[in-house]
Amino acid sequence: MSVKNRLIYLPLGGAGEIGMNCYVYGYGPEDRERLIVVDLGVTFPDMDTTPGVDLIMADVKWLEERAERIEAIFITHAHEDHIGALGHLWPRLKKRVYARRFTAAIGRLKFEEQGHPLDVIHTVEPRPAVIEAGPFSVQFVPLAHSIPESSALIIDTPAGRIVHSGDFKLDPTPIVGEGWDEATFAAIAAERPVKALMCDSTNIFSPLPGRSEATLADPIHGLIAGAGGMVVATTFASNVARLKTLAEAGRAAGRSVCLLGRAMQRMVKVAQETGVLTGFPPTIPSEQATEVPRQNLMLIVTGSQGERRAATAQLSRGKYLGLEMKEGDMFLFSSKTIPGNERDVLRIMNALSEMGVDIVDDSNGRYHVSGHANRPDLEVMHQTLKPQMLIPMHGEHRHLREHVKLGETRGIPGEIATNGMMVDLSGDKPEIVEYIDTARLYLDGSVLIGAMDGVIRDRIRMALNGHAMVNVILDEDDSALGEAWVELMGLPEVGKHGQGLAEMMETEVSGFLETASAKIMRDDDKLDEALRRIIRQVSVEEIGKKPEVTVVVSRLAVE
Amino acid sequence: MSVKNRLIYLPLGGAGEIGMNCYVYGYGPEDRERLIVVDLGVTFPDMDTTPGVDLIMADVKWLEERAERIEAIFITHAHEDHIGALGHLWPRLKKRVYARRFTAAIGRLKFEEQGHPLDVIHTVEPRPAVIEAGPFSVQFVPLAHSIPESSALIIDTPAGRIVHSGDFKLDPTPIVGEGWDEATFAAIAAERPVKALMCDSTNIFSPLPGRSEATLADPIHGLIAGAGGMVVATTFASNVARLKTLAEAGRAAGRSVCLLGRAMQRMVKVAQETGVLTGFPPTIPSEQATEVPRQNLMLIVTGSQGERRAATAQLSRGKYLGLEMKEGDMFLFSSKTIPGNERDVLRIMNALSEMGVDIVDDSNGRYHVSGHANRPDLEVMHQTLKPQMLIPMHGEHRHLREHVKLGETRGIPGEIATNGMMVDLSGDKPEIVEYIDTARLYLDGSVLIGAMDGVIRDRIRMALNGHAMVNVILDEDDSALGEAWVELMGLPEVGKHGQGLAEMMETEVSGFLETASAKIMRDDDKLDEALRRIIRQVSVEEIGKKPEVTVVVSRLAVE
Repeated sequence: MSVKNRLIYLPLGGAGEIGMNCYVYGYGPEDRERLIVVDLGVTFPDMDTTPGVDLIMADVKWLEERAERIEAIFITHAHEDHIGALGHLWPRLKKRVYARRFTAAIGRLKFEEQGHPLDVIHTVEPRPAVIEAGPFSVQFVPLAHSIPESSALIIDTPAGRIVHSGDFKLDPTPIVGEGWDEATFAAIAAERPVKALMCDSTNIFSPLPGRSEATLADPIHGLIAGAGGMVVATTFASNVARLKTLAEAGRAAGRSVCLLGRAMQRMVKVAQETGVLTGFPPTIPSEQATEVPRQNLMLIVTGSQGERRAATAQLSRGKYLGLEMKEGDMFLFSSKTIPGNERDVLRIMNALSEMGVDIVDDSNGRYHVSGHANRPDLEVMHQTLKPQMLIPMHGEHRHLREHVKLGETRGIPGEIATNGMMVDLSGDKPEIVEYIDTARLYLDGSVLIGAMDGVIRDRIRMALNGHAMVNVILDEDDSALGEAWVELMGLPEVGKHGQGLAEMMETEVSGFLETASAKIMRDDDKLDEALRRIIRQVSVEEIGKKPEVTVVVSRLAVE
Repeated sequence: MSVKNRLIYLPLGGAGEIGMNCYVYGYGPEDRERLIVVDLGVTFPDMDTTPGVDLIMADVKWLEERAERIEAIFITHAHEDHIGALGHLWPRLKKRVYARRFTAAIGRLKFEEQGHPLDVIHTVEPRPAVIEAGPFSVQFVPLAHSIPESSALIIDTPAGRIVHSGDFKLDPTPIVGEGWDEATFAAIAAERPVKALMCDSTNIFSPLPGRSEATLADPIHGLIAGAGGMVVATTFASNVARLKTLAEAGRAAGRSVCLLGRAMQRMVKVAQETGVLTGFPPTIPSEQATEVPRQNLMLIVTGSQGERRAATAQLSRGKYLGLEMKEGDMFLFSSKTIPGNERDVLRIMNALSEMGVDIVDDSNGRYHVSGHANRPDLEVMHQTLKPQMLIPMHGEHRHLREHVKLGETRGIPGEIATNGMMVDLSGDKPEIVEYIDTARLYLDGSVLIGAMDGVIRDRIRMALNGHAMVNVILDEDDSALGEAWVELMGLPEVGKHGQGLAEMMETEVSGFLETASAKIMRDDDKLDEALRRIIRQVSVEEIGKKPEVTVVVSRLAVE
């Protein structure tokens, strides 16, 4: 009797959301499949749902429990939502990592910071080079994106060829790296039929064909040539093609160019060292920039998303590294604002406006292009690869759903597979065969905590409701020793009757303790519940809020 | 010697922000000006800056201290950012309130809830009716907006005529209420030259002329006529013109129409009762809607901004009032997402997508129009009124700045006056004469607290850092009685060494108490500081975070 092998796909992150990409492919007998992991990314926290958290990543418990079956980890490109968790999660998997030169260099910087061995990250050349990983043969195919060396993966298996698109756009002239070449992808499909295409869905709702990075050069040159005062421009630090365009436009306008922000300096350095970025104009350090007349100066800075500690936010607050924006200066946002960051970005724009700075943003679409394929571009990819089935990824549910619909208009069967949905690709159509409990891990300070641990839920509750702490000391006879003590945090001092809120609570609690039955006074749980109720009652009555309550009952035994 | 009178303008809210509008005009000798207040609005909280807060409004302390000089309060229209604080702040001012019929009715509902006298709210007719208020003669001039009866105010003073635009658009066919009529405004300027125009700046960055509410009827009718399953549409509850268009489109497509959400039902009721809304199609109650086949049903619901308790969010979570969305239904967002609400709205769209619902939003610009004048419309207003000076309002700093620039291109001197900047309008040009300390009040539960009280700062800190509470009991000799007790909230239970975080803190604190000098043990402040430091040190070491710390030291005296 022969064992039946199957080919499976399992997204653990990035499907049903934009961020923390983590995809698994498996081949072999059921529950004994050999596995490869594609990307280990992070997503970013927000005050609404994850206050105080530093980074969010997929919980890789499913993979940890099957670590001996994992052949390798592949990283498609160096954006944080694809590589950001590598340093944090690698110790749980401890497998070889494969990436192209620039991506591998970024990965090694992360490993250095974390003290992981650097030699587990292997630099791979693009197709036709092949990495053999158990039943998988993997090739990296260059595609344009908004960072150097983004790659699709061709994943060959005994059950057929998979193309995992990674993040991409169809850009024939991306300034940095290889441009879109339809012939390459046509050849991939001609060489061996594509069983399944796992495809970027980010821009499925953008109806017009994407524009090339190269189209920005003229407008940006024109804009900067016409500027009078200092020019400051921001974009994503990893978009080195954009940085080059901006820097060249600055130089062409007779300006000295200074890069501000550690992330940006690091990206340019790594891109130059790995050879992906050449011909970048000379730059000056910030100490020197302070000596340059402002009409001859251009700063290219981090913080396009309003990040509070980045250079853009710093400049909006006043002097930064000796540099200061003034009336008549120009600030160019060569970027789009990611949903959720609007408030932070607008806060900065208004602060700059108060300084008299002229702000140019992407609202007229002239100074920024997206790094993702738009709807017509996705159709080109579908037509070129002619996959037997389509599984959209890198999108929220609405993106995946729309992308499946788009494929179906060309007769390509698809499936909406969100995080945790295991898809069997072995047959003619994708088939969901299992639902894995997926979860998220939070990097919180220096530790990883589970999203469901309740820690963050408690933070949110304290933020919404405030926190009252009541302290009671009981003697060996279960009688109160002294008065109750209430401390408040995040609650008003005075209630609606004009009296101190804590004092009113203390009075109520002390009164209760004097008259409470011995049964309650003896029982920690009952006493806790009773005190909690009193605190909440006073609070609702006085300020109309139910605070979080911590009760500390200290029982003193005579020694 | 004659006393010199002056005409002043002082924004207390709404200038340098979009929200919580509150403007003051004064006429008379310096510091003895008689005053009128225009609008008392709120702005809405967010987790980033105001967690747990219910509403935000201008601190009217400056007005309270001058209450005897206030003649009256005028409300331009019934949007919450113009009327929302009336019920909360009126007790501090206790002056007559003037508003048109619909606005006054909404105001009285608020007064009813708060138990204020209803007869202080006076219904006024539009121009040529005049309200005399000390040195001010005020007329309400109808203008189209996205709520019935929005009005500009003509404020005549001995020093000249002011036009306070309120919120407006130039819509000749607004479906509900009076349309834009240039002749009316030309006559206002011809009658008496306009000394100053205080003007809505919301859409200064929208380069094309605004579109009329009436242009939506055809696209919306077409969309709904083509729908198969149940149709649900959301828009702002107060946009009764839009509600009418939506309801008519539903009826035209043979659907029964049901309004869901208390705010929406209330708005339609008040609009009908006050006569501003006529010919609204018949609707059915929700209990009856459950009996209607879905292809014959249309719901018009609250919650276009993703508000968690509104009907849209409820429907996105499952059954609501017996109604449930399903595969093949359509959800229309006939609205735009206000910056800051993107995440909440997208969460709902994705939840609907998971139900198989087709989502139609405003991305193609067919199913929503703004209620504010765009840049070319503002130019028309400038040209029609030909004001001697222009003070932009209802905008963030960047809007005000751009609006001043626009006025200057036509030779109208302007001034950026943000909250607290008192402008003397008496001369030929606006002149800033004083800076008032402005502040915000937070409605938090049932009490108003000051933004700077530290309450909210503490909530934010607990949310970001977690909260550790350490309890220590000392006897009459200042020695520790029993062990220290640490409670954690919003912090992980276990540190990086795998031990309980609270236990490690307790051990450290107990160890410290055993060896601490008598001097420290006697001194509450020193002891507090020392314990705080220990808690933070253990926390930084173990979890890489500095929590908020509350120290409770109970000193027991022998009785």
